[in-house]
Amino acid sequence: MTDTKTGKATDDPAFGIWEGEVATELPPLYDASLYYIGRIRTPWKQRKDCPKNARESGEICTIEIDPRWAQALKDVESCSHLVVLYWMDRSRRDIVLQVPRHYGVQRGTFSLRSPARPNPIAMSVVRLVKVDGNRLDVVGLDCLDGTPLVDLKPYFASTDSVPEAVVGWHRDRKA
Amino acid sequence: MTDTKTGKATDDPAFGIWEGEVATELPPLYDASLYYIGRIRTPWKQRKDCPKNARESGEICTIEIDPRWAQALKDVESCSHLVVLYWMDRSRRDIVLQVPRHYGVQRGTFSLRSPARPNPIAMSVVRLVKVDGNRLDVVGLDCLDGTPLVDLKPYFASTDSVPEAVVGWHRDRKA
Repeated sequence: MTDTKTGKATDDPAFGIWEGEVATELPPLYDASLYYIGRIRTPWKQRKDCPKNARESGEICTIEIDPRWAQALKDVESCSHLVVLYWMDRSRRDIVLQVPRHYGVQRGTFSLRSPARPNPIAMSVVRLVKVDGNRLDVVGLDCLDGTPLVDLKPYFASTDSVPEAVVGWHRDRKA
Repeated sequence: MTDTKTGKATDDPAFGIWEGEVATELPPLYDASLYYIGRIRTPWKQRKDCPKNARESGEICTIEIDPRWAQALKDVESCSHLVVLYWMDRSRRDIVLQVPRHYGVQRGTFSLRSPARPNPIAMSVVRLVKVDGNRLDVVGLDCLDGTPLVDLKPYFASTDSVPEAVVGWHRDRKA
């Protein structure tokens, strides 16, 4: 099966387009490029096995940093929580309106945390359990095993924590 | 002036390497690529003018989304806070140990929010003030005017807010 808009194979229906979804034309050129700096090891080998969100799971996952970047982990062990950025390399990038299956309502891509977005960078806040050389055990991820890592940052409560934040469409959704 | 390690011009000393800093060799190839999806308009034209962190400033900044992606803003107005990912396109990417000037102590790149990192993606949590077509007024950014935008996400307190998080080296630093 080939998508008529992008010309890309969509043999995995989990990554295709659904009724009510709208795609845009992708720009002709990229603007910047990324290095994968490591891999995330999780218990989940298929998308259907992943927890719906990270709060559902207390599983320990392991972030493996490439040896090239291992020195950059200095002082990370002093952080209770980290921001993890990773690359959802199997996602469509042209969808602007989408219909998450567990809600069934059309939403704009930037109002969702779906992996389908122009730059499929996921952001998760994780609790750091252990650092062992270039391996970090963390709790709070929900991604596929082998997912490419693109950044790690210290989580500062002073700027990153907003307990009173509200996502209106989510608060008001039907049960 | 040319950096002997990267062969890149470092005519702006604000983006060079300092005593006590350590660079690694960059990988020969990139692994993935990004689209700029808009620009961030701020009052700050030079790095020295930027607030040291976003909490220092209550300035309203404007995120301009490219028309190609405007439909993806549907429902964003219902969010009180957003996660903004942007590209710090003037940063070195090879530094693993760095000495932030306002602390004066060598730290690992992944324990810092410095723009110098293998993938210079910044993450800021902002308060949404207004949506007007493809323009979003927000509070909580500290970047240069014209900074390229790479993603917008809804901020969910349930998974993104950790008020008790601690960055040990920062808590224990000398005044």
